[in-house]
Amino acid sequence: MSVLTVGTVAFDDIETPFGKVEKVIGGACTYISWAASYFVSDIRLTSIVGGDFPQDEIKLLESRGVNMDGLKVIQDGKTFFWAGRYHENMNQRDTLTTDLNVLDDFDPELPESYYDSKYVMLGNLTPEIQNRVIDQLKSPKLIVLDTMNFWMDIALENLKKAISRVDVLTINDEEARQLSGEYSLVNAAKKIFEMGPKYLVIKKGEHGALLMSKDQMFYAPALPLAIVKDPTGAGDTFAGGFIGYLAQTDDISFENLKRAVIYGSAMASFCVEEFSLGKMKNLDIQEIRDRIQAFVDMTHFDV
Amino acid sequence: MSVLTVGTVAFDDIETPFGKVEKVIGGACTYISWAASYFVSDIRLTSIVGGDFPQDEIKLLESRGVNMDGLKVIQDGKTFFWAGRYHENMNQRDTLTTDLNVLDDFDPELPESYYDSKYVMLGNLTPEIQNRVIDQLKSPKLIVLDTMNFWMDIALENLKKAISRVDVLTINDEEARQLSGEYSLVNAAKKIFEMGPKYLVIKKGEHGALLMSKDQMFYAPALPLAIVKDPTGAGDTFAGGFIGYLAQTDDISFENLKRAVIYGSAMASFCVEEFSLGKMKNLDIQEIRDRIQAFVDMTHFDV
Repeated sequence: MSVLTVGTVAFDDIETPFGKVEKVIGGACTYISWAASYFVSDIRLTSIVGGDFPQDEIKLLESRGVNMDGLKVIQDGKTFFWAGRYHENMNQRDTLTTDLNVLDDFDPELPESYYDSKYVMLGNLTPEIQNRVIDQLKSPKLIVLDTMNFWMDIALENLKKAISRVDVLTINDEEARQLSGEYSLVNAAKKIFEMGPKYLVIKKGEHGALLMSKDQMFYAPALPLAIVKDPTGAGDTFAGGFIGYLAQTDDISFENLKRAVIYGSAMASFCVEEFSLGKMKNLDIQEIRDRIQAFVDMTHFDV
Repeated sequence: MSVLTVGTVAFDDIETPFGKVEKVIGGACTYISWAASYFVSDIRLTSIVGGDFPQDEIKLLESRGVNMDGLKVIQDGKTFFWAGRYHENMNQRDTLTTDLNVLDDFDPELPESYYDSKYVMLGNLTPEIQNRVIDQLKSPKLIVLDTMNFWMDIALENLKKAISRVDVLTINDEEARQLSGEYSLVNAAKKIFEMGPKYLVIKKGEHGALLMSKDQMFYAPALPLAIVKDPTGAGDTFAGGFIGYLAQTDDISFENLKRAVIYGSAMASFCVEEFSLGKMKNLDIQEIRDRIQAFVDMTHFDV
């Protein structure tokens, strides 16, 4: 089935305890699309870049089955730029620079060929843009929305409107607490379901991810890794694996959502092993299968 | 099989966002013994209290099958006292008071009837005392040692000696990093196995627990709860459920250690629902079975 991906395409400067890279390819939409490309070949990207964005990267995504008609290129503009430095523990980071550049005027108009997209992954962006995209969809089967505390602080009403229109919300534990005003994640989920979504995915980074519905719960651990070089894009890569697997299997039962969380977690575990998209551009199916098996081995028990 | 429990028996003052209690029963050995008592009826407690410790509590433990010959009572002394206040997020706490009292002179001499104990749970205490206990054991089948960063700071050599003599080490993620000097938990575990233990249990609080051996890994989540009133004793309760289940089944294979981690996690999930031992004193077998099933439901997936 078709996947629509929406979000930033960016240049990143990244510093972690394991190294430093400059002007590498980043952005939520990039990570989502790359991860999803291992599952489906009908991906429709929606984003904006400046004339400085390398043609090679666009061609590479096209070669993975990503339709780029929805990528607006502002020839005399500059691509969104983010610079960040991770703390020693890698769970926290400081944003050093955020240059919105062309993103400042992003008003996504979907190509007509995107209207019938079935699986929709709205990456972290202003809720206004997320709503604009939802407005243009004709018959989505599942809409997933990712967001962050920043939008809860400055655009809560628009965010709530967007949340009310989607099937799955993905946020981290602190954001779930902020959005709901409830400390317990069980109670937070209850409040969030009242806002509209049927499912909530709480991303806990190195502690895994929690999938919740009104009456079911699934806890997927993150795989402990010997090497974690760069956490940038891990959440987006999770989202890409999640939506990609769902689109590939075209099954939105809770049982299959559980599998999608495992596939998303597996893809994220690759992402962090190299800077930028270093690892994500060079995976093969066997590697992914082996990693899924590692999740099975790590969680399986009989009582 | 027999379980030997060693650790503090205490009075606690506890303040959490959900309430405040004063001079309630606490201590690692208390929580361990209560949790283990749901699995085995031959438990041998080793600790020290003052004359101020209530006889009723001693009798209650005895009625659960806990042998109290190893409880030294210093009639004119005062019981160890700890006071702490939890932060809003409950993952952090400030210690307000630590009065060692009788604990200051604790030199555990095991009753002869304890020498042949098979399953040994050394609760968090000075490594010197933990070593003293190990010295007196004749034929232990499995020794588990719990410790904390405090002893890494002030008694590292004694602690390393104790660690070299046990089968399982239980610590939290930050402590695993401190002890090994490795950030990655995979690499931290490798270093720790070089110190002696065959198994490492990394306790991650609300994020679950990780069981590792040289070549296997198991991730048990914590159960997300609607009510978490008081995290005090959760780690000790985990340890009590863990050692109790192992002693009950008398099987120290990795597969059974996995089950023991789940049983420990289930017991800990009860512990935090009430202050002090409020919940731990009143469980029944069906409640425990239902909670184990909740862990199965929460983690099971097919790929």
